[in-house]
Amino acid sequence: MIYLDHAATTPVNPLALQAAWPWLTSEFGNPSSTYELGSRASVALEEARASAARFFSAKSSEIIFTSGGTESDNLAIIGIALANPRGRHIVSAKTEHLAVLESLEFLHRAHGFEISWLDLDKHGNIIDFQSSLRADTTLVTLMLANNEIGTIHPIRDLVLQAHQVGAKFHTDAVQAVGWADLNVQNLSVDALSVSGHKFGAPKGSGLLYLKSGIQTEPLLHGGGQENGLRSGTENVAWAVAIAAALEQVTHSGAASNFGPGSDSERVSKMRDEFIGNVLKNVPSARLTGDALHRMPNLASFTLAGVSGEAVLLELERRDVIVSSGSACAAGSSDPSHVLIAIGVNPELAQTAVRFSFSHETTTEELALANTALVESMANFT
Amino acid sequence: MIYLDHAATTPVNPLALQAAWPWLTSEFGNPSSTYELGSRASVALEEARASAARFFSAKSSEIIFTSGGTESDNLAIIGIALANPRGRHIVSAKTEHLAVLESLEFLHRAHGFEISWLDLDKHGNIIDFQSSLRADTTLVTLMLANNEIGTIHPIRDLVLQAHQVGAKFHTDAVQAVGWADLNVQNLSVDALSVSGHKFGAPKGSGLLYLKSGIQTEPLLHGGGQENGLRSGTENVAWAVAIAAALEQVTHSGAASNFGPGSDSERVSKMRDEFIGNVLKNVPSARLTGDALHRMPNLASFTLAGVSGEAVLLELERRDVIVSSGSACAAGSSDPSHVLIAIGVNPELAQTAVRFSFSHETTTEELALANTALVESMANFT
Repeated sequence: MIYLDHAATTPVNPLALQAAWPWLTSEFGNPSSTYELGSRASVALEEARASAARFFSAKSSEIIFTSGGTESDNLAIIGIALANPRGRHIVSAKTEHLAVLESLEFLHRAHGFEISWLDLDKHGNIIDFQSSLRADTTLVTLMLANNEIGTIHPIRDLVLQAHQVGAKFHTDAVQAVGWADLNVQNLSVDALSVSGHKFGAPKGSGLLYLKSGIQTEPLLHGGGQENGLRSGTENVAWAVAIAAALEQVTHSGAASNFGPGSDSERVSKMRDEFIGNVLKNVPSARLTGDALHRMPNLASFTLAGVSGEAVLLELERRDVIVSSGSACAAGSSDPSHVLIAIGVNPELAQTAVRFSFSHETTTEELALANTALVESMANFT
Repeated sequence: MIYLDHAATTPVNPLALQAAWPWLTSEFGNPSSTYELGSRASVALEEARASAARFFSAKSSEIIFTSGGTESDNLAIIGIALANPRGRHIVSAKTEHLAVLESLEFLHRAHGFEISWLDLDKHGNIIDFQSSLRADTTLVTLMLANNEIGTIHPIRDLVLQAHQVGAKFHTDAVQAVGWADLNVQNLSVDALSVSGHKFGAPKGSGLLYLKSGIQTEPLLHGGGQENGLRSGTENVAWAVAIAAALEQVTHSGAASNFGPGSDSERVSKMRDEFIGNVLKNVPSARLTGDALHRMPNLASFTLAGVSGEAVLLELERRDVIVSSGSACAAGSSDPSHVLIAIGVNPELAQTAVRFSFSHETTTEELALANTALVESMANFT
């Protein structure tokens, strides 16, 4: 199997599972219990928090473990908006993940927030950010890298502008772990969401970086765990697992260097070669997203005249696993809201196919994927 | 180690972990992906849902997988209250779990709900329910069994009264799996919360039974998973694990029969013998909670004149693991809110010690625990 859908989900890193193992077996204590079995769990949880904090150059107290990227996005967006009543205006873009869009829709519907949707060019880049900011802008939420088309936003620049009007800034960095600099000191963001299962931690693990001093209303109320921001007995095993998976990203060198000679650069070159081959061999193929400011591991195309879903099945018959659009919506066959947002017509949006790689993906695999795509397309003519 | 703190958390059942294993390793697909790897995950998720539904005599569509008991409580209470605008009055009791109390506090503070707190006798029984119900009562939330003192409420009777005024009824059944009848047809509840780690599933697993047709506002917005009520990529492994743990409860016979000859009756007798021995051997000991309507596996005492926390440490030195109060609040050394609610003075509340058993706990272990308690108490005189 040539698995090229890492943007949908990744295999669990065996080292992450190994790290979690004691906390699923003999070390089953509740971290809030005061006896040794409990305090060992509490120590493991705090060590995982400190380790995760180092990855982001954050303080331990700024890391909140959650059940995944969707919860992190909801907590940041709804939590910050409701706790900061300076205004009821939020800036975002229609290319965001559904966890962001639906959190905003909830704030609009239930709490009267006004959302300004940024204009985007046809590659998913923001055209004019500055003019969207107002004195009553409470929050800006913009993803670091898009999960369907791979376009990367210049988060640091956007944050500095947002902060000038006093707005808080949240970024959904779910796709970016291991592929972009997530040093929160450099990014200057107030909140940053991560989902474990996108980089080798299990489904059901996630975390939110939340800068010290940012007022936030919790979503889950109860025993006051996670510094009062996320009640519920802590999932110690998955906290340990997500920290271990982040450490693996660091050890692989994929967390600190994104410039010349880095693994990101190597994968970007593979990606560009793959894109070049697809565009050459499949006349109907058009790259979606920005050609330069894009995720090193993501290549997505429209394939006018065919169904993306049908191409996916043809590729699967050839043991190449890809996605048509994203896998982030349950049972949806609607055209991608991301492609619609960048001006692709609904019919063409249904032809989209996404290839997303890991750091282990090889040039040979991409060559085979290219061949499989060419063969698949031949079936439709 | 004689572990007698099963009300705080339980070891993961190896069979539950074994059932989850494929979904943590080779079967890593996203259930929303349409290729085989994804659809196998989706099938596993739905089989887990059907299996869990059978445990509660519910329909599959009435089971929502969550990240734990706290999330289930929050979703039921906040979700039902906000989606049913017939009134802003809720009935509950101060002996509820913090996940319930803090959800209610949020509804009061942020949405103006009025909460009526039921009067309780000194054993934690409800004195007068009927008179608390009003035409504008939207929701009643009362736990099936108390986690600190073990008192069981007559849920079915309470539900029938609540339904007569048109109120919805949620019960926190987190402590009750395997110890009380959770057939939702018998209980007639509208919503019922469960936490996996209280009966052999991992921390981070949970579910909510939500009766068909009950309007509920989701807490987590996004891709529309879990029938639109709990967005986020599904934690397939823990859904499979919680279903497997429930199946083990069923297979052990601990789910269907609570009368004569049942395992619950056997454990209740062990409990009563243990309580009798403690009351005989420790003159200062007083049982908390109702002597008859109580959890088969829970015995809790105040021990006037000593610190419950100090007794816990003495017992731990003798390899007996118990709790002083509950382990449900992060880093709290406040006196138990449950004991305060049933009229125990704060000083005496600090002397509380709780013993909670599993179906595997033996009479020998309880005899050793009794001896260890007597020895521990001798240290304080």
